[in-house]
Amino acid sequence: MPADRGQSGPPTISEVAAEAGVGRATAARTLGGYGYVGPELRERVLAAAEKLGYRANALARSMSTGVTHTLGVIVADIGNPFFAGVLRGISDTSRARGFDTIVLSTYEDLDEEVAAANVLIDKRVDGVIIASAAVDRREVAHIRAAIDRDIPVVLVDRMVPSLDLDTVVIDNRDAAREAVETLIAAGHRRIGFVWGPPMAEAPATRRDLLAEAARNLWSDQERLRGYLDALDDARIPFDPELVMVGDKTEEHCTQEVARMLALPDRVTAVFCTEAEAVTGTLRALRTAGLSYPRDISLIGFDDNPWASVMDPPLTMIEQPVHDLGAKAAEVLLDILGGADPRHETHVLRSRLITRASVAAPS
Amino acid sequence: MPADRGQSGPPTISEVAAEAGVGRATAARTLGGYGYVGPELRERVLAAAEKLGYRANALARSMSTGVTHTLGVIVADIGNPFFAGVLRGISDTSRARGFDTIVLSTYEDLDEEVAAANVLIDKRVDGVIIASAAVDRREVAHIRAAIDRDIPVVLVDRMVPSLDLDTVVIDNRDAAREAVETLIAAGHRRIGFVWGPPMAEAPATRRDLLAEAARNLWSDQERLRGYLDALDDARIPFDPELVMVGDKTEEHCTQEVARMLALPDRVTAVFCTEAEAVTGTLRALRTAGLSYPRDISLIGFDDNPWASVMDPPLTMIEQPVHDLGAKAAEVLLDILGGADPRHETHVLRSRLITRASVAAPS
Repeated sequence: MPADRGQSGPPTISEVAAEAGVGRATAARTLGGYGYVGPELRERVLAAAEKLGYRANALARSMSTGVTHTLGVIVADIGNPFFAGVLRGISDTSRARGFDTIVLSTYEDLDEEVAAANVLIDKRVDGVIIASAAVDRREVAHIRAAIDRDIPVVLVDRMVPSLDLDTVVIDNRDAAREAVETLIAAGHRRIGFVWGPPMAEAPATRRDLLAEAARNLWSDQERLRGYLDALDDARIPFDPELVMVGDKTEEHCTQEVARMLALPDRVTAVFCTEAEAVTGTLRALRTAGLSYPRDISLIGFDDNPWASVMDPPLTMIEQPVHDLGAKAAEVLLDILGGADPRHETHVLRSRLITRASVAAPS
Repeated sequence: MPADRGQSGPPTISEVAAEAGVGRATAARTLGGYGYVGPELRERVLAAAEKLGYRANALARSMSTGVTHTLGVIVADIGNPFFAGVLRGISDTSRARGFDTIVLSTYEDLDEEVAAANVLIDKRVDGVIIASAAVDRREVAHIRAAIDRDIPVVLVDRMVPSLDLDTVVIDNRDAAREAVETLIAAGHRRIGFVWGPPMAEAPATRRDLLAEAARNLWSDQERLRGYLDALDDARIPFDPELVMVGDKTEEHCTQEVARMLALPDRVTAVFCTEAEAVTGTLRALRTAGLSYPRDISLIGFDDNPWASVMDPPLTMIEQPVHDLGAKAAEVLLDILGGADPRHETHVLRSRLITRASVAAPS
């Protein structure tokens, strides 16, 4: 029978620790099945847990099946070098702490993400890191399902509305604003935004654009807001014709940049939110017989080895990809080791790497 | 009691099918737990299996735990766009047939590969696709362990000596020979090979080089052999100074190409076996104040969007990455569906994409 604790709610790890007369960390390690705990202390913790009625799912799971020392990671696109870098950070950190990492890629498809979460629950991973495609509170049931089974979840790269979870991101809005400010400082006022949230047609107003963006990924919204912030600060009016409309593909990007280059008051600079938008933009320049930075200036996400060997080399935003993954794994492993989830947003710094793709408008 | 079949060895699916009076495919589907089989036929197959003592692990597994409809994939480096493309091919094909795919990356570390194979066995995947880092018959115990547990394995990208498994690859030797022949046809005779098998110092002889290569990955060996084939056919003597020595990193590659550019009889062309070797070579050219194709010609593995937006665009070898993955998944799913492993090597065609990085020596 559980002892009367004189309060409501299930007993916590701290209460078990106090009852056993051990430190909280020792209780957490014992109950979580992680790390070394001597047999005598272990016995005391388990006796205290039983006395208090501590029966967390984690305990039941570790007792019935053993912990698996496996983390599950769900990424939006394994083919994006950004996620490859994040995965390496997760892998390096979790390997150092004795955990293997299994990865599922959803290719930005929410149905696939739901299936992936179910696979990870079924495979009994100890914890999950997700770069989620969910943009709405009605789209997070699969993440809640994992948490309900006492599988801790940490978000990476993207905040998800309505989920109060530990989250590791960069400040996308600030990174975008800095890039666009750099273009403005060089003298540009006709600055294309490539690519934006997928829209069937050009937004009539700035409000329409933001409403559309709100139905898209958090990181995409934030980059758009950073672009608008920089325009606002410089009192440059927003022009809907300078935002890419349509599918987010490299091929379509090339067409949209060609359209912006053909405007009577054409773009003189382009801000690219993805590496594929950079290559799409470069293709459009070549077709139009234009070169950078003479005819057009260019800054983009994410830096990579090719951007630095281009002639001229490209000014790019570098995300701390390895650190994003390492931090997400660290937070998750701490929770698995007994730390309480802190529901914090961890914001890492990106960096604008100045090379030679920005010049004054011709 | 098993019926006397008048022969040694465990009963096969074909024998169960004959006993049940059904087609082999029906017996395979029933015993493998895949695809639709009507209840009456299913009953007959199971009765025949019991009569003959058919107790394959797969049957035991599917009966006790159910199939999991999960494929496991072990890749050498999730950060290499080549593997990202292969994974997409695997994922598209397996999703279409109702299977999820979980991925582990070994970062070319054989110990990690062994751990990854154990994770996949532990997670009860139905089948495994591996791009293995194993180069020696003493390094394949983990792959045999999966097969012994009746988890079929298909190899992708790399053949592994001593493993007689279905394998999906390109003809690396032929692809390399074609690239080097293209450089020779343009008039080059001083052609660098970047990067080769990792060697501490330059090989004294061609035989030393091949012996060293034989202790490395099959695909690396094959690309080296293709380079040597092309030299032989053109009666160009092998020069050990034109082979990259040392760590296979982009940074070290830059140093090695700088060394080859500083030789009294310097390189006039470079053949790169990896995309990172291409960016490393381009960095060395920039430092030396040289440009391609005027001062030096260049062909590399693997084509990507950046190579085509360079100025001038690069002549590159394109591997059928999606098809490699799709074929590997198809072969594996066919085995899971009841087909017998055919122990075949499936060779897909790569393609040399001619752009503008090759010219006559200056």
